[in-house]
Amino acid sequence: MSDRILAAVMAGPRRPIEIREFNRPDLPQGAALLRTARSEVCGTDVHLWHGRLSGVPYPIIPGHVSAGILEMIRSPLRGIDGADLREGDPVVFFDVHRTCGRCRACTIHRTPTRCTERRVYGITDPAAEGLFGGWSQGIYLEPGVGIARLPDGVSFDDYIGGGCGLVTAVHIIERATLRPGDSVLVQGTGAVGLSAIALARLCGASTIIAIGAPAARLDLARRMGADRVLDLNGSTPVERLETVRALTHGEGIDVVVEAAGSARAFEEGFTLARDGGRYVVAGHYTDAGSSTVNAHYHINRKHLDVRGCWGSEPGHLLRALSFLERYGAIVPWRAIGERTYSLHRLNEALADAEAMRITKALVDPWAPA
Amino acid sequence: MSDRILAAVMAGPRRPIEIREFNRPDLPQGAALLRTARSEVCGTDVHLWHGRLSGVPYPIIPGHVSAGILEMIRSPLRGIDGADLREGDPVVFFDVHRTCGRCRACTIHRTPTRCTERRVYGITDPAAEGLFGGWSQGIYLEPGVGIARLPDGVSFDDYIGGGCGLVTAVHIIERATLRPGDSVLVQGTGAVGLSAIALARLCGASTIIAIGAPAARLDLARRMGADRVLDLNGSTPVERLETVRALTHGEGIDVVVEAAGSARAFEEGFTLARDGGRYVVAGHYTDAGSSTVNAHYHINRKHLDVRGCWGSEPGHLLRALSFLERYGAIVPWRAIGERTYSLHRLNEALADAEAMRITKALVDPWAPA
Amino acid sequence: MSDRILAAVMAGPRRPIEIREFNRPDLPQGAALLRTARSEVCGTDVHLWHGRLSGVPYPIIPGHVSAGILEMIRSPLRGIDGADLREGDPVVFFDVHRTCGRCRACTIHRTPTRCTERRVYGITDPAAEGLFGGWSQGIYLEPGVGIARLPDGVSFDDYIGGGCGLVTAVHIIERATLRPGDSVLVQGTGAVGLSAIALARLCGASTIIAIGAPAARLDLARRMGADRVLDLNGSTPVERLETVRALTHGEGIDVVVEAAGSARAFEEGFTLARDGGRYVVAGHYTDAGSSTVNAHYHINRKHLDVRGCWGSEPGHLLRALSFLERYGAIVPWRAIGERTYSLHRLNEALADAEAMRITKALVDPWAPA
Amino acid sequence: MSDRILAAVMAGPRRPIEIREFNRPDLPQGAALLRTARSEVCGTDVHLWHGRLSGVPYPIIPGHVSAGILEMIRSPLRGIDGADLREGDPVVFFDVHRTCGRCRACTIHRTPTRCTERRVYGITDPAAEGLFGGWSQGIYLEPGVGIARLPDGVSFDDYIGGGCGLVTAVHIIERATLRPGDSVLVQGTGAVGLSAIALARLCGASTIIAIGAPAARLDLARRMGADRVLDLNGSTPVERLETVRALTHGEGIDVVVEAAGSARAFEEGFTLARDGGRYVVAGHYTDAGSSTVNAHYHINRKHLDVRGCWGSEPGHLLRALSFLERYGAIVPWRAIGERTYSLHRLNEALADAEAMRITKALVDPWAPA
Repeated sequence: MSDRILAAVMAGPRRPIEIREFNRPDLPQGAALLRTARSEVCGTDVHLWHGRLSGVPYPIIPGHVSAGILEMIRSPLRGIDGADLREGDPVVFFDVHRTCGRCRACTIHRTPTRCTERRVYGITDPAAEGLFGGWSQGIYLEPGVGIARLPDGVSFDDYIGGGCGLVTAVHIIERATLRPGDSVLVQGTGAVGLSAIALARLCGASTIIAIGAPAARLDLARRMGADRVLDLNGSTPVERLETVRALTHGEGIDVVVEAAGSARAFEEGFTLARDGGRYVVAGHYTDAGSSTVNAHYHINRKHLDVRGCWGSEPGHLLRALSFLERYGAIVPWRAIGERTYSLHRLNEALADAEAMRITKALVDPWAPA
Repeated sequence: MSDRILAAVMAGPRRPIEIREFNRPDLPQGAALLRTARSEVCGTDVHLWHGRLSGVPYPIIPGHVSAGILEMIRSPLRGIDGADLREGDPVVFFDVHRTCGRCRACTIHRTPTRCTERRVYGITDPAAEGLFGGWSQGIYLEPGVGIARLPDGVSFDDYIGGGCGLVTAVHIIERATLRPGDSVLVQGTGAVGLSAIALARLCGASTIIAIGAPAARLDLARRMGADRVLDLNGSTPVERLETVRALTHGEGIDVVVEAAGSARAFEEGFTLARDGGRYVVAGHYTDAGSSTVNAHYHINRKHLDVRGCWGSEPGHLLRALSFLERYGAIVPWRAIGERTYSLHRLNEALADAEAMRITKALVDPWAPA
Repeated sequence: MSDRILAAVMAGPRRPIEIREFNRPDLPQGAALLRTARSEVCGTDVHLWHGRLSGVPYPIIPGHVSAGILEMIRSPLRGIDGADLREGDPVVFFDVHRTCGRCRACTIHRTPTRCTERRVYGITDPAAEGLFGGWSQGIYLEPGVGIARLPDGVSFDDYIGGGCGLVTAVHIIERATLRPGDSVLVQGTGAVGLSAIALARLCGASTIIAIGAPAARLDLARRMGADRVLDLNGSTPVERLETVRALTHGEGIDVVVEAAGSARAFEEGFTLARDGGRYVVAGHYTDAGSSTVNAHYHINRKHLDVRGCWGSEPGHLLRALSFLERYGAIVPWRAIGERTYSLHRLNEALADAEAMRITKALVDPWAPA
Repeated sequence: MSDRILAAVMAGPRRPIEIREFNRPDLPQGAALLRTARSEVCGTDVHLWHGRLSGVPYPIIPGHVSAGILEMIRSPLRGIDGADLREGDPVVFFDVHRTCGRCRACTIHRTPTRCTERRVYGITDPAAEGLFGGWSQGIYLEPGVGIARLPDGVSFDDYIGGGCGLVTAVHIIERATLRPGDSVLVQGTGAVGLSAIALARLCGASTIIAIGAPAARLDLARRMGADRVLDLNGSTPVERLETVRALTHGEGIDVVVEAAGSARAFEEGFTLARDGGRYVVAGHYTDAGSSTVNAHYHINRKHLDVRGCWGSEPGHLLRALSFLERYGAIVPWRAIGERTYSLHRLNEALADAEAMRITKALVDPWAPA
């Protein structure tokens, strides 16, 4: 990598993405420079571009989940998997950094994903501070960032195909506390929903139903492990409820996973869960508006467990890698990333993602314009 | 007890309560006849009178939680506490009966409170079938009903003062999985809320806050163990949120218990819980209308656990008795039952309860008109 | 089936198995007669024959897990899966019956596998009471027994290959509360251990290690899903510990499952689990002698969770069936049942099982002598 | 405090405690100097003196739990309770420091008490590094140490009376996941056991039984909340089992807490727990030898949960403070600290503790010789 590093910058909501040059960073003890191989354009990036996340310090370099080659390290450097890291290693890193380990969220409540000091590469780090985003030829991995070696046999495209959705899905399935043979319904067939389907299948679910759109994503949902897919646009909530009941002794689903980010989907999930079931709400990373819920029918009489699921922890990244290593050849995570864009085509990538023409855009910062 | 037993019958919604005579029942093996000492008029009875519960087989003899003396038994009879029962024993019984132990709710999902066969004394048993309600001089305890001896030192008034609200509160606190020193906020200062306050105090809560009305109930909430009471009518939701945050390092409450049965209270509870907290929804035994919930702010980003809590199990009754036995002298459960009515004054009792002039009416079926 | 039904009877410990004739039973309402297709000789049967279970009412008809065709029913009969059952249906049944639903274990503690009234086909039902065991051409399914239809595509041999070990393994994996990507080590490669390996694999484990013997079982363990097998006879505990640590960042295993029934294995499991891990103890269905445990090193300082796992519940049977239906074609449960014996060869079957020449013997009560 | 600070040093196992002078430490940003008001001689200190903990970097200044006045701080300093701290504030601190927040124990397994980097004041910090122990007039609170203001109304003697035993007991009761009305048996009536009794009582236990010795401690156990005390020396295990069964419907105890640190007590606890109960093993902070356990009778068939409990977390300290604040006036924690010793009498204190003449010795480093 030369001393001049190209990165794509989002200067503000709805502003066109621009290419800027950055200096190669000086590395303090414990830091590293990553030569980016792949990053992604995920739903959060579209939200960033729409200005729907609060507190974002524009301009930023987007791209929160990325992978690449360790170009330079200040030794010694140890991965969160416990392995020693060397220059030239293919690695990934945990995008959340600066989790303080001292605040009440970290120590007293043990909810590190709610730490007030935490920052996230590509989302809450300003471009003025340096290379803290994946839409860039190089990423500055500051001291303390959790790095892990990409397992043998897992390609950059495999990893980014799963990407942040896969890591989130590990947290979702952990939070769902699946019992062996639970039925699972996933609302939403974007990157998070698709990975949740795959992990539910790999973690012992029996019947898996997916609700989503469009047709191409439903096909992929089937390939990820869904037994049955319901087209959001080709069915009414009443029809979906009837179908779900017909498949579950009239009871509804053991575990519903909301990964749709829609206020209507959130409402519908309550009706689809069985009495005494669990409902993991994971798709509302931004405010998609309010929903109408009836406490009697939906929660109290149902004896329902509703579990919000926010962010992820380093352990979820490691577990995601272990699933990729073992099942990457048979679960089509790579297919979630349908097209690869150069830095110069990221406005196009955002437009494609916004229009749902693609599930996820991959970013190759070294691709020619 | 003579062969003619007087009972109060609710013939239908909004119909005046009438006194009718019933025959002394024949007792098959395993059955018993209870000479009723006390029953209650609780919020559910008001709902029954308003016709707000579905599937009620009017006419019924209301009164689901009651206590009395075993007048006659078909020996041998063993209590759910494992003790042998004898005629003359003061006893209580678990109002839910005929839980089948065979349906999918009972065996597969282990959610016996959602058993489809279950019936409840005073609510789902028709008067045509006999003495299945507490507003009666005698109660027919059919074979299989869970009976427990009233502990020494616990009076009928103590027990009925706690009544169904206390048993429900045991389930609530169990479902809240309190950690030692959790802060607790209880929404609602009716019979369920007051007992939830007392049990939270006895089960290791630190700060306990209650929201309710009117003033008399707030006074009682303090006596039950609340550190701080907030008058629902004398404060706005914003003011209550500010007060709660000021008491909790700006974070909100570890465990919120909804025992208000109001659609607005259900909404407010989400704001009062801290990130990563728990929210037990237990007050919506009937449909009190819909609420507006924001999945992003209230659940997903909060990483919140919302837990519906329906009905109770025999173990909750036994645990309620053990709390009454140990703490009945210092916790004013008896004060929840403010006035005692004869069978002939039950229309008045319903009117008083409806108007919230009393928290709970006790019923003495042997009191003179 | 004729009116004279042949069954194999174990008259007492170490007594040769004899063939006796039984009358076709009268069926009360809710009962059924099963024409047995397959039963099994499992480890418990060897224990029965050795007289190592207490309270067994010899003579008995052994065979606790069995499958067959509904020969006659007293309609209507509904399965525990909620489906209506008809004569001619291929079914299985839950061997534990008469769980009372009323005792303190059932209602208060919610530990139905410790109900004092429960009886088990083939183990605690005397032959004098009738056809309560699977080593028989016919089995009397008394009213209340949990029956489930064998799913399409699951053969009797598939089901009995998994058999009681599979149902137990569902309970084990449920009790282990696997997080996605946990490492799992299974001690013992008998019927229970082999099914635990398969279910751990299907329920999201990452690395799975098995310890067992002899070589044929270790091969099968690999086919069931183990990544690594350690020959009990070809390695020392110290060597196994080193191997396990080398595979787990020096830490030990997330979840150890004891399915060996050996006092030494029970001791070794403590060393193999990581700090903060879980240890499910499921193999000691009979007294295999005492073990030496150090509370400091093995439990306290390890912050270990040790979880005994006794028996199973009807839900575990249903979940076992759903795994067989979905994965029976790719997981070689059928291979666990290596040989099929007629009623006349059951002494030989017991001898083969005792000598560990086979993992499990299948019983075909209609096979010629 | 002058520039010369006196501290008591343990130069090695069985070596007499000596008084040494230390320099007043320089304070980097985030550090503080505590003027010690009280420290303690607990069971761990006796173990240290016996040389029974591994890896102790003698010479050390013992005293891991202490309290005092903030003599000097490098502002700003914020407590783990979130409050700003000022010079002159009475404070306590969390003895475990340098928990790394980065290792696999911290991030992946979320078992911070098993962090390999963690150090403990008074135990694993060498005197050569400075004032890292409570048997000293001053304590150096390095940057990152968790400090909390002593609540109003809680005296230094109250706090140290509870001391490390109280903080450990909060962890124990959290780990026991008490259900409302559980019966609890505590083995051991030392500082940990006594606080476990008090907290079980305050956290909703019904019957509490204690097993211990000598008589004075059993009296204190009663005052802490035990309903029934069993003299270890005046009864046999069989007698104790009979007593316990007689008090629990013949079943045994819901939750047994081992706080005895004896290999025999650890064995006995298995027999005292009911089927399906929980057994928290918390007293074996050092190796007290091996025990004999039968996997069949004690764990597998009992369907028992055994839970090791190691160390504590900052949240446990805060929760301990909230119990002291609310209940310090009615629970005699202060009485656990029976005698107060000057620095010059610490050899005597160790001898008294070793001989069990006292439950716990308090240390006043400013007391005259």
